[in-house]
Amino acid sequence: METGLLIVISGPAGSGKGTVNAQLLQTGDFAFSVSATTRAPRPGEVDGVNYYYISHEEFEARIASGDMLEYTSYVGNYYGTPRKEAEAVLASGKNLILEIEVDGAGQVRKKFPEAVLIMLLPPDFSTQESRLRGRGTETEDKILGRLAQTREELTHLDIYDYIVYNETGKSEICKEDILSIVRAEKLSRKRNPDAARRYFGN
Amino acid sequence: METGLLIVISGPAGSGKGTVNAQLLQTGDFAFSVSATTRAPRPGEVDGVNYYYISHEEFEARIASGDMLEYTSYVGNYYGTPRKEAEAVLASGKNLILEIEVDGAGQVRKKFPEAVLIMLLPPDFSTQESRLRGRGTETEDKILGRLAQTREELTHLDIYDYIVYNETGKSEICKEDILSIVRAEKLSRKRNPDAARRYFGN
Repeated sequence: METGLLIVISGPAGSGKGTVNAQLLQTGDFAFSVSATTRAPRPGEVDGVNYYYISHEEFEARIASGDMLEYTSYVGNYYGTPRKEAEAVLASGKNLILEIEVDGAGQVRKKFPEAVLIMLLPPDFSTQESRLRGRGTETEDKILGRLAQTREELTHLDIYDYIVYNETGKSEICKEDILSIVRAEKLSRKRNPDAARRYFGN
Repeated sequence: METGLLIVISGPAGSGKGTVNAQLLQTGDFAFSVSATTRAPRPGEVDGVNYYYISHEEFEARIASGDMLEYTSYVGNYYGTPRKEAEAVLASGKNLILEIEVDGAGQVRKKFPEAVLIMLLPPDFSTQESRLRGRGTETEDKILGRLAQTREELTHLDIYDYIVYNETGKSEICKEDILSIVRAEKLSRKRNPDAARRYFGN
């Protein structure tokens, strides 16, 4: 069976990546992986479903052994993607979506060079700003913080392979863009180094 | 307007590239360019439509000045793609298809690095052989010559960006493969080096 692609999808607040990723999932050709974390399970969360809950010591041992494709720490806890978990999804033939930020994307680029890195963006910065304000759920400080973070993150845009724009109300087009990227990548000669040998059947 | 992509499509005899290219042309987003040649026009051929008919001396001068993106000589005459002709098509926003062989593809790769090189193949060598024999129009010697040429050409497969397989009766899938490649390439970060600047509107 054809192995899936590891696809990193990053996008600033307001890029609509949750919607687009849900649409990709619905096609049946994509999956998310279960992350590992050191934070305690919340009521109702199930180990191996919401997260793999592991100790601080074990997490650091797995970083050291190279088992984390990427990780980050947030409010004193680690969160990361176990390599074995990712490889199991890819071996099933599904494309694995990692919805992570720029720092994690850079880690994946180094540890898993065959990953495809996609940056999802609103059509432009002023649209992003309107979307964040339009939500009406965040303080002005929080909004300004997110916008400043976007300015910083986009200085690292050159680690990404593709840039996809999510026009308002057109997440379907975004989904098609990403499906085209996956289809094209699978046809790339780099990913099929033994094509000539296979063609001649030897 | 967005500039078109220069797309080289090579394929051995029996790959069905004529059919696939005709389907691409029908989408309205692709065009061929008019080649230049030193051979005399045949009855009914029109200068600037079938070919640009130029002298041997002029052709060699245009090779020397770098005006030929690629050229070849066949039975004592030159055939080539004038760079200006190609650039005019790309500026119109259409994607330009050059249906050329491996040697020409290599020349384009050097002179126009942003070109996308696609090798179109039958599903496998034995299918190619059956297709050629099935035509019933060529001598055994000619068929063996074409198959030997394919063996030689595929030693240069590594200059291509993509490999697309044309399963029998499924040229529509091939067309969709190539449309995905074009869509993905246009979203590539490399082709949009000023994306961050444009995003912030400055």
